[in-house]
Amino acid sequence: MKYAESGVNIDKANEANKAMSESVRSTWGPEVLSDVGHFGGLFKLTEGYKDPVLVSSMDGVGTKLMVAQIVGRFDTIGQDLVNHCVNDILVQGGRPLFFLDYLAAGALNPDTVAEIVGGLSIACKASGCALIGGETAEMPGLYQGEDFDLAGTIVGIVERERIIDGTKIRPGDQVFALPSSGLHTNGYSLVRRVFFEKLGMTVDDVVEEFGCTVGEELLKTHLSYLAHVSELQKHVNVKGLAHITGGGIVENLPRILPDGCGAAIERGSWTVLPIFNFIQEKGEVSEREMYRVFNMGLGILVVVGAGKADKVPERLGSLEIRR
Amino acid sequence: MKYAESGVNIDKANEANKAMSESVRSTWGPEVLSDVGHFGGLFKLTEGYKDPVLVSSMDGVGTKLMVAQIVGRFDTIGQDLVNHCVNDILVQGGRPLFFLDYLAAGALNPDTVAEIVGGLSIACKASGCALIGGETAEMPGLYQGEDFDLAGTIVGIVERERIIDGTKIRPGDQVFALPSSGLHTNGYSLVRRVFFEKLGMTVDDVVEEFGCTVGEELLKTHLSYLAHVSELQKHVNVKGLAHITGGGIVENLPRILPDGCGAAIERGSWTVLPIFNFIQEKGEVSEREMYRVFNMGLGILVVVGAGKADKVPERLGSLEIRR
Repeated sequence: MKYAESGVNIDKANEANKAMSESVRSTWGPEVLSDVGHFGGLFKLTEGYKDPVLVSSMDGVGTKLMVAQIVGRFDTIGQDLVNHCVNDILVQGGRPLFFLDYLAAGALNPDTVAEIVGGLSIACKASGCALIGGETAEMPGLYQGEDFDLAGTIVGIVERERIIDGTKIRPGDQVFALPSSGLHTNGYSLVRRVFFEKLGMTVDDVVEEFGCTVGEELLKTHLSYLAHVSELQKHVNVKGLAHITGGGIVENLPRILPDGCGAAIERGSWTVLPIFNFIQEKGEVSEREMYRVFNMGLGILVVVGAGKADKVPERLGSLEIRR
Repeated sequence: MKYAESGVNIDKANEANKAMSESVRSTWGPEVLSDVGHFGGLFKLTEGYKDPVLVSSMDGVGTKLMVAQIVGRFDTIGQDLVNHCVNDILVQGGRPLFFLDYLAAGALNPDTVAEIVGGLSIACKASGCALIGGETAEMPGLYQGEDFDLAGTIVGIVERERIIDGTKIRPGDQVFALPSSGLHTNGYSLVRRVFFEKLGMTVDDVVEEFGCTVGEELLKTHLSYLAHVSELQKHVNVKGLAHITGGGIVENLPRILPDGCGAAIERGSWTVLPIFNFIQEKGEVSEREMYRVFNMGLGILVVVGAGKADKVPERLGSLEIRR
């Protein structure tokens, strides 16, 4: 008996590793002291912090990757994953240092692996984040055929006194939003059920309201707000930031509010993206459920002091502020 | 339509989160500044390093978790995962700071989740490592029923001048080994094929050579060598450490050898554990293949200067040195 016969091909894994080494190395600055193939990734700590705190987060892309598999496009989910993680530490004030990924499949397809890791590298570079490690595993029996899962960990840093944790939020403070590009990475089990089961649509169907195919709409990249929040902080003291992911506004905003503090979010004060109206209407999903599952067009909520929202520009780069 | 009908149950996920909070918090020291439910984990950097380098590694447990599922025992695989990661940074000189885990399932079983996270917590505590974050995801459609995957990331620290990278290894240096407890976490696709398909055995069958059931042998915990290596370094200057994982001695030892340097490992100089002889013989696996897939009883290989191996004690705690 040979190991390859049980579905695990070490040579193929080595081939995949080689293919991704180049894009991985393109994310490295002088802080990276290790090379591909070492047991662990070595990262020289950024200097100049008085009381440095590491901020880290681990996440997956959920079943958005099953949509990627149907479409046969694998460069965007890597970006989704990195950007999601970047936002998760950004809302606590963290700036990215490095990233590690976990990719497990029934059978490794070196081209798919290269495309995914290429996407991870693009997003890492855009956020100044080194892709310093990862694990690529073949697990036949758990994953069917070329099915796969993808997860990642980001580690960032923040000066202790600059941690954003919402503790200074007070009644009377104001909330506004940075818009999302669409679904980001949440609610895809429901989305797949609505589009592919209930409506019997395919990823190639064009939806007029979307101005693109179903596949293109569903694979729109999760935005990173690193640049926007950095710009925002030049204009106003940010007291709290909530990344609107699974659980929606309803569950994510309260995570940063102090005890005894609530928030009133006025529906209709921003334009809900067509994708959400489509799902709600055609999928016959209640509004309550929509707000508990989806971001409804809001990527990050920002809490600032009373009256301070006026100091915020109308736009931050490509984003129009939602109030 | 409701989200729960598409197979994702946010309430159940919240219940699972609550169940694991207690064991997670038990791993925390004063460095942990965040609480369960925050977007990212906050870890105050350990002081007293002159030129600190972060060492990190991400890994999974492979299809050992499918054995755990057959046996219905979930406390050991969490320990396997943490210990594997601890060793991966240890071989570069790193000491653990914190850990994050990713647990994805078709449908979350709160009891299983609690058992897995309990195992992660036990191993984290044993290594002085804080479990500061993680993601628990329900991905129906990708994972069947209660099938799940488990991965984790460790972040540790090392003084730059104390990084162990094998660059000082020279011809004439000596290699010895710290023994493994068994299969650790590699080769399980082949192992499952041999035991359950070729031999038609069940996890409850007792094998005389093992002195226990098949299930007990296959779930033996991946050892952490943190304490042993720390003790070892009091006796001898360690030039290189190789964690023997997938690829075996054949692929893992060369990872730390400088160009132009090879190593002669004498078969028969240590006792191969019964599990490996059993698989080789009953599974009709070639010796070459065995050495490429399994650790063959050696958990970590240690390289020291010529003649220095004599300075190493016969035992390190519970481990008898293999030469």
